[in-house]
Amino acid sequence: MDIDLNADLGEGYGAWRMGEDEALLGVISSANVACGFHAGDPSIMTRTVREAKLRGIDIGAHVGFPDRMGFGRRPMQIEIGELASLVTYQLGALAGIANAAGYRMTHMSFHGALGNLVAADAALASPLLRAVADFDPHLIISSSSSRAIEQAAGQCGLRVATSFLADRAYDDEGLLVPRRLPDSVIHEPQAVFDRVKRFLDHGYILTHSGKRLEMPARSILVHGDTPGAVDLARSIRQEIESGASHVVPMSQQLSMQESEAPKQT
Amino acid sequence: MDIDLNADLGEGYGAWRMGEDEALLGVISSANVACGFHAGDPSIMTRTVREAKLRGIDIGAHVGFPDRMGFGRRPMQIEIGELASLVTYQLGALAGIANAAGYRMTHMSFHGALGNLVAADAALASPLLRAVADFDPHLIISSSSSRAIEQAAGQCGLRVATSFLADRAYDDEGLLVPRRLPDSVIHEPQAVFDRVKRFLDHGYILTHSGKRLEMPARSILVHGDTPGAVDLARSIRQEIESGASHVVPMSQQLSMQESEAPKQT
Amino acid sequence: MDIDLNADLGEGYGAWRMGEDEALLGVISSANVACGFHAGDPSIMTRTVREAKLRGIDIGAHVGFPDRMGFGRRPMQIEIGELASLVTYQLGALAGIANAAGYRMTHMSFHGALGNLVAADAALASPLLRAVADFDPHLIISSSSSRAIEQAAGQCGLRVATSFLADRAYDDEGLLVPRRLPDSVIHEPQAVFDRVKRFLDHGYILTHSGKRLEMPARSILVHGDTPGAVDLARSIRQEIESGASHVVPMSQQLSMQESEAPKQT
Amino acid sequence: MDIDLNADLGEGYGAWRMGEDEALLGVISSANVACGFHAGDPSIMTRTVREAKLRGIDIGAHVGFPDRMGFGRRPMQIEIGELASLVTYQLGALAGIANAAGYRMTHMSFHGALGNLVAADAALASPLLRAVADFDPHLIISSSSSRAIEQAAGQCGLRVATSFLADRAYDDEGLLVPRRLPDSVIHEPQAVFDRVKRFLDHGYILTHSGKRLEMPARSILVHGDTPGAVDLARSIRQEIESGASHVVPMSQQLSMQESEAPKQT
Repeated sequence: MDIDLNADLGEGYGAWRMGEDEALLGVISSANVACGFHAGDPSIMTRTVREAKLRGIDIGAHVGFPDRMGFGRRPMQIEIGELASLVTYQLGALAGIANAAGYRMTHMSFHGALGNLVAADAALASPLLRAVADFDPHLIISSSSSRAIEQAAGQCGLRVATSFLADRAYDDEGLLVPRRLPDSVIHEPQAVFDRVKRFLDHGYILTHSGKRLEMPARSILVHGDTPGAVDLARSIRQEIESGASHVVPMSQQLSMQESEAPKQT
Repeated sequence: MDIDLNADLGEGYGAWRMGEDEALLGVISSANVACGFHAGDPSIMTRTVREAKLRGIDIGAHVGFPDRMGFGRRPMQIEIGELASLVTYQLGALAGIANAAGYRMTHMSFHGALGNLVAADAALASPLLRAVADFDPHLIISSSSSRAIEQAAGQCGLRVATSFLADRAYDDEGLLVPRRLPDSVIHEPQAVFDRVKRFLDHGYILTHSGKRLEMPARSILVHGDTPGAVDLARSIRQEIESGASHVVPMSQQLSMQESEAPKQT
Repeated sequence: MDIDLNADLGEGYGAWRMGEDEALLGVISSANVACGFHAGDPSIMTRTVREAKLRGIDIGAHVGFPDRMGFGRRPMQIEIGELASLVTYQLGALAGIANAAGYRMTHMSFHGALGNLVAADAALASPLLRAVADFDPHLIISSSSSRAIEQAAGQCGLRVATSFLADRAYDDEGLLVPRRLPDSVIHEPQAVFDRVKRFLDHGYILTHSGKRLEMPARSILVHGDTPGAVDLARSIRQEIESGASHVVPMSQQLSMQESEAPKQT
Repeated sequence: MDIDLNADLGEGYGAWRMGEDEALLGVISSANVACGFHAGDPSIMTRTVREAKLRGIDIGAHVGFPDRMGFGRRPMQIEIGELASLVTYQLGALAGIANAAGYRMTHMSFHGALGNLVAADAALASPLLRAVADFDPHLIISSSSSRAIEQAAGQCGLRVATSFLADRAYDDEGLLVPRRLPDSVIHEPQAVFDRVKRFLDHGYILTHSGKRLEMPARSILVHGDTPGAVDLARSIRQEIESGASHVVPMSQQLSMQESEAPKQT
């Protein structure tokens, strides 16, 4: 089995740093790059893209609310057309930086509060994924499991790569427990590792309430902004590779599937 | 003779408006669209691009310093690599919005204090035009007359369209008199019109000190943020069309020249 | 009867203007000054405070969400302690500018989406008015009618001056109809004037659904960002003064009441 | 001898942290708190002020350019009246937060590029210190040695506390070597410690060119954003207290001097 290891990178701003980007870049296969609205700035984006190119790591736009002070984690009520423009702007900015670096953007994902809202609300997912498809129909949508996003993507002809957020609690619907609720984030590295192992070995995870939830993901998201994050990511990579599996970016997984698929006639 | 009429548009922000964009869109052939750093936001950019597409008007990125409070008119000392990233980011953002709207960006220009600095300093023009070329070598650089920009563009294989800023005073070197100096902006519509007429009829303008300066431009910039700007723009268009000349976007002028040029062998 | 005429001023940002501040300053008795988060910047605040001082007009802090792009009109979900700090910061900034100008701040009010949320939610009103009282217990809270605000102010020992928002629709509870709903803003000057006249003559207004609602206000808010706003404000002032009433700032009304009140023993 | 130990604190923004504020608060006697323009936000300012109050540490406003992306380290050319408003706004914001916390602001200092410009240019120092005096004539100006600042403060009746920036190189005029120049920051803890020891023992330092420069300071600034900063600060404090000296905030040093001074008649 091929598994993508992805992480949110480039989440600093100006002189401020967040997470251990340099170390993570040696472990992951895909990077979700902040685009300057909730985090990231043009210099950081440029550095991140160049590093990713050197290592052959996929890059995607990590699109968030325009709220640096809140790191994109505070829900904002924004008119839908305006929100679609905010998404397009961020996609364009990262694609432009990738372009200038002689690289290409393969995917996008929604960050923080915007991510939670889109994953839970078809009325939001539908126009925003339409905005993504209008920008570039070949982009892969990287997302935690969400019926809203999957359906909206299907309607727009966009491919979805479900990602398992190893250190976040899931509810029984398969949605992320919002960050402001208790126990929404799993801080203990061993507990995170055990969740990954269960997922790799059996294909399911345990929800917030203890139920088994099938997790049809081919991608694992590791967070880089906690102590021990890099060690954890390395352990996960090692665990993947200790079996018969390989760490492979989503874009390669999908293009292999597509080339192997029987031609439609 | 073909003359391009261009204007800086989309210079509002959120609820704030600047200039009479709607009216100007009916007069000009090219729009320089603010990209969200000194002015403009994703919604305004989207509206401007859609309107321009409807009317077949060229759009370009109007790239400025990251300083909304100062409207990009305050010089900032930014490390050159960082500045290049800021340029690329803004180009990408507008190109992305154009792309999503099914349109294409044809040109770029530098705004305000950044524009003055780039036009006067080869050490700045060279890496920034390199950044533009890395992003898209087909973009036209729209600029007031500047040896620094022309040389840098030449080195990168970029085409320059010199624009005559009808309401701005020029020094004897052909550079714009900085806005903070007295009489740098000509507010009297008749005086602006007379300058345009002299340029159209004779190909030169009068500098700040009263000298004749040859103005090898095929493009006239009109500003939209002063009372009477739209009437003035209409008078200028009428004056152009009352002769044998036509109002034609730069991108069309240049592609006609190129197709007419004898093939290099 | 004494009536305060107040308006939201200083709502520009950098080069952007909003409303006809200069003209309104000649008509009103109190100004609610934007503090730099949803609108306003230090220069505009300084100019507004100096003008108000010259004319003896009361100034107050108009406190909003940190969202310039949305003009403070988009609801944001911000943790309550953080929100209290945002309020204190804005109060301090305007008080500091008033102080440096040799003037004093008399009141405060909440702007836009923050105003709607505070007026409707005691759980928000209570800690935010506590923050105001911690900053300065002598500040008057200027507000549309709201039980949440009145109760919270009472608990903190703060005085409330109810303001009648002449061009905004009210629901039957006396709360403002949110701006995103249809007919929430009354644009027709004559209709606004008629509402004011009914309020002045009879002390009540008509709600969205047509019911009579007692309006125990001694202050009328006029908006300055619509065409005809200044003429409307002048008509209202004339209407007030054509009876036996006078236009008097809230701070003077309240200090007269307090000096006339029988001493508590 | 009494020596003040001060540090720049509260330099995070939203979710971003900078420096080890908690640890430094246990070592220093005065904190220069970022006011939200180059760093800091209302929540961080509130936390910092409350902690300082608990420990009896002086707080002052650390006033910078409006440039978060550049951390206030990029020179900006801002019209002087506007710059004065920016200073007043930041002073007011921190004073307001201190006020609401039942504490008081004792001093102010200029940050980064603004600090360098003010220290070197009387034409800037004069109006900006006038703005400080207009806000509160009792504030102490904390500054590296600068004739421009000392003269301007003298004209406004403001007191100056010269601070020795232990990890920054000085030129022969006693001005800081700008951060963008090589060797402007001394990173080696032992070298910084030696500079402090020479200053404490002999009252002078060595400039960039190796000359002796008298350093009439009663305050030492330690930076908190480098590894080992807290240990270094502790060593410096220990060194001060190992002699007959004490660590005492500037405001107490100055009020003792003033009460001991012979009355002017």
